[in-house]
Amino acid sequence: MLEKIIPAAGWLRRYRREDLAGDLSAGLIVAVMLVPQGMAYAMLAGLPPVFGLYSSIMPLFVYALFGSSRQLAVGPVAIVSLLTLSGVSAVAEPGSGEFVALAALLALMVGVIQFGLGLVRAGFVVNFLSHAVVSGFTSAAAVVIGLSQLGPLLGVKLEAGHSVLAQLWEAGGRLAEVNPVTLAIGVGSIAALVLFKKISPRFPAPLLVVAASALAVYAFGLEGRGVGIVGEVPGGLPGLSVPALDPGSVVALIPTALTIAFVGFMESIAVAKSIAAKGRYEVDANRELVGLGLANVFGSAFSAYPVTGGFSRSAVNYAAGARTPLASVITAGLVLLTLVLFTPLFYYLPDAVLAVIVMVAVYGLIDAGEPVRLFKVKRADGWALVVTFAVTLLVGIEQGIVVGVAFSLLVFVWRSARPHTTEVGYLPEEDVFRNVNRYPKTRTFPGAFIVRVDASLYFANMAFLKNWLEDAVSARPGLSYLILDFSAVNDVDAVAIETLAEFAKDLRSRGIMLHVAGMKGPVRDVVARSGWPDGLGQNASHLSVKHALRHLDLWPEPNVARLPTA
Amino acid sequence: MLEKIIPAAGWLRRYRREDLAGDLSAGLIVAVMLVPQGMAYAMLAGLPPVFGLYSSIMPLFVYALFGSSRQLAVGPVAIVSLLTLSGVSAVAEPGSGEFVALAALLALMVGVIQFGLGLVRAGFVVNFLSHAVVSGFTSAAAVVIGLSQLGPLLGVKLEAGHSVLAQLWEAGGRLAEVNPVTLAIGVGSIAALVLFKKISPRFPAPLLVVAASALAVYAFGLEGRGVGIVGEVPGGLPGLSVPALDPGSVVALIPTALTIAFVGFMESIAVAKSIAAKGRYEVDANRELVGLGLANVFGSAFSAYPVTGGFSRSAVNYAAGARTPLASVITAGLVLLTLVLFTPLFYYLPDAVLAVIVMVAVYGLIDAGEPVRLFKVKRADGWALVVTFAVTLLVGIEQGIVVGVAFSLLVFVWRSARPHTTEVGYLPEEDVFRNVNRYPKTRTFPGAFIVRVDASLYFANMAFLKNWLEDAVSARPGLSYLILDFSAVNDVDAVAIETLAEFAKDLRSRGIMLHVAGMKGPVRDVVARSGWPDGLGQNASHLSVKHALRHLDLWPEPNVARLPTA
Repeated sequence: MLEKIIPAAGWLRRYRREDLAGDLSAGLIVAVMLVPQGMAYAMLAGLPPVFGLYSSIMPLFVYALFGSSRQLAVGPVAIVSLLTLSGVSAVAEPGSGEFVALAALLALMVGVIQFGLGLVRAGFVVNFLSHAVVSGFTSAAAVVIGLSQLGPLLGVKLEAGHSVLAQLWEAGGRLAEVNPVTLAIGVGSIAALVLFKKISPRFPAPLLVVAASALAVYAFGLEGRGVGIVGEVPGGLPGLSVPALDPGSVVALIPTALTIAFVGFMESIAVAKSIAAKGRYEVDANRELVGLGLANVFGSAFSAYPVTGGFSRSAVNYAAGARTPLASVITAGLVLLTLVLFTPLFYYLPDAVLAVIVMVAVYGLIDAGEPVRLFKVKRADGWALVVTFAVTLLVGIEQGIVVGVAFSLLVFVWRSARPHTTEVGYLPEEDVFRNVNRYPKTRTFPGAFIVRVDASLYFANMAFLKNWLEDAVSARPGLSYLILDFSAVNDVDAVAIETLAEFAKDLRSRGIMLHVAGMKGPVRDVVARSGWPDGLGQNASHLSVKHALRHLDLWPEPNVARLPTA
Repeated sequence: MLEKIIPAAGWLRRYRREDLAGDLSAGLIVAVMLVPQGMAYAMLAGLPPVFGLYSSIMPLFVYALFGSSRQLAVGPVAIVSLLTLSGVSAVAEPGSGEFVALAALLALMVGVIQFGLGLVRAGFVVNFLSHAVVSGFTSAAAVVIGLSQLGPLLGVKLEAGHSVLAQLWEAGGRLAEVNPVTLAIGVGSIAALVLFKKISPRFPAPLLVVAASALAVYAFGLEGRGVGIVGEVPGGLPGLSVPALDPGSVVALIPTALTIAFVGFMESIAVAKSIAAKGRYEVDANRELVGLGLANVFGSAFSAYPVTGGFSRSAVNYAAGARTPLASVITAGLVLLTLVLFTPLFYYLPDAVLAVIVMVAVYGLIDAGEPVRLFKVKRADGWALVVTFAVTLLVGIEQGIVVGVAFSLLVFVWRSARPHTTEVGYLPEEDVFRNVNRYPKTRTFPGAFIVRVDASLYFANMAFLKNWLEDAVSARPGLSYLILDFSAVNDVDAVAIETLAEFAKDLRSRGIMLHVAGMKGPVRDVVARSGWPDGLGQNASHLSVKHALRHLDLWPEPNVARLPTA
């Protein structure tokens, strides 16, 4: 019972000694990765770096208690950080005290939304995000995030809030102002990170780069030569402080909070599910919403900005041997230790190095192969990806996800409005009915026209279907029977029934009888309620096409020998 | 060839003498109906009454040349008039010169949009309007229109632009100001119209009421007792005047123009199709768009406001014997004659009578039986009607149609996300596979679980389906084969294939083989492009469930005797 509310009660009670080694080493490795990433993502979000560390403590503890994934690494992530910047900067100046307070308020709102959605079991909404949309959105967001770090990398202060093209243009026009020392540190850091990833992927290269660059700035006094540094990072723990619920701010932040609640959950559940599949256990979407929601709510009381489960750190956590959420508890403990003891070490850390850490992390999110694959398999999916990518990149990150979802659902509606419809005939050797165009050996039945409709019938496709049938019937003079194979009609609405009943009446006046075969249960229920069978005539609905043909005396029995049943 | 561009070339060349009598009498009857209705609808639209007559000449001539319906009666209609009022009154004061100019500009914009949509063959968009949405919208619009006439009926000037409830409230609070003579004329007119409709439906009651009431006002000097009258109606023809294309006005009117283009076309094509079905000829949606578009464009050059084909006058036209568009030409000629000769006769016509003509006309548009029927047949359709009705009535007429379309499409998407899925078994007497729950006599096959999925598979329903299958498989220990009957799977996307391939791999590791039966051509094409069959394993796709069972040696042959093929 307790376990149902607090999953931690389960894994703590069943904790096995042999899991400890894996949890300890994974916890340490993720902490080493999280400290620089947390500070870098906080800067991306428009916050002082220390808030990235604050966001890497409380949420991890809370998620470990309430979440259902064993290896999900919760904390600041790139896309949510960018969404925080774009949403809060519309209300307050990035880096200001007001901005910091609003970021915590945003985390509270995101948490409440996620928690509420989890309680009403609305986790299924994530199903409406197709993989194509997620891929296009992630790739575009990675490009936007990467470009947003151009300023600190070059040592140039670029205008925030510009479109991607305008940012590139501005950076190009201000190349003369580039600080060569900053750029050298940045490029050197990129080279080091890429190199280490190739040679020894497990090596904590970001920590090394952080340490080496801070040391270099300190040793050579580079801060005096225009290299931007992190400066004073306040030590110690964040105090408990509930965000002020100013109604105006709450209303202004609602769209951003909804987007982050949705996008953050989506990123998190995707990685949680893929790890759970590898580890052969289940994660529950609604429980995940509750866990992430509480992580954000409690985080916001300790100065955290919105967090979620991230792709890369979760993968590292799993690969490094994490077996239970204890790994995350250890990570959070180490971040806490860092805050208490080691913040003075970050004083000389160059901003450019944090920018590079973001850039290298998001580079891995860009997936150029997916559009190629999707266009090969299904063009509509490929277009959904391209549209989402283009809108996210060129219009805005929040618009991108909305347009992507709408586009992919409209594609589905659009396809359903022009359904595949085909004449079928009988394949004697196989005893099945199949498309006469794909199977040349099918035989047809004189005077009868058998049509398979591959769609649920509803108002948006009835005009198309009726036209198709009209044309086909007109092209076949001397027809006596039109048999509709309904085995692929999964649903009908009132308009469909009405249209078909009228069509049947019209056909009858031209001497053609409409028969329906293989109508399935849910469709029969709707039809029965509408009273259609009267309009269609008695005995016009049959279990299968073969039954219909037998009823119409078109089935060549008793000469069964001519139609071997294989 | 000429006939392809100007359909009139066809019907004029083939004109038969015997059609003339019907066309003449129908043209006359519709004109008698159109003159008072045109003036009444113009007032509803916020225009001086004479503009209703202007809108009843040029558009009729042009539609007769370019339209594809033989009996459609084009001209001012109630719903388009209301949309004109609500759209233009946001920019200009109703009744003012600016308002009149903007109404003509709106007609030009509507015409250009409709003409353009017809050229790019976009007439199919009307398919996305379900009957439920149209019914809810029409009923609500009729209520809004009827209430908008309360002011002239009571002889009270009510504030325009209020919500329905506010209008009722205001009218209730100002009952003391009601002009008793005006109300008596109005109630008397309603009684006369209702009575004549009952006794002699063909009798031109509106013309009689118009004549009698004007005569009464003149004879008893009622205009001096507070009865509002039409007053001076300028005689003669409207001059040629192209609407001024002020960019600000054009931008402000775009949403209204789009709504009218869409709603007007929808009303028109619905009535044109139903009459064409009775008359056994075809109307083409794209040609209708071109015809209505040109009618509005040319109309706008002669002071017309937006027009379309109306329900009631078209029905009267057909019933009165119209055989060709010549009937409309005759109607237009008679309206023109009225403008030249008879406008002084309308001077003493009470506003209340025009209000009554609108009220009685729109009363027939309210359909209370449809929601009852839809809720019986299919609840989702019923809700689409109710939502459209409520939003149209309480929020606004333009929002109503948008919300209705969005709601009905979302219902479709929503249903597709939770597809019907069932275990099927074999019915030996009938030689078909059917739902085991609906057909207790079905037999199943030991070690095999046969599932029919009643849906196209795509990103939004794969999580649901996989969970369903997971639960079902877990509940059946000792399972060796899961056979998916794909005969009702009409389409798949890349996510569906990926999910299924992963699921198959997962099942295999648990000793269960996934087989697919009856995959249809379009689905096979997508699957082949994605390379799934490798992931699924060789020989895992079969022509039918029976083929699959044979392949797995589960089909009890050669004991065919045990399974008679009826």
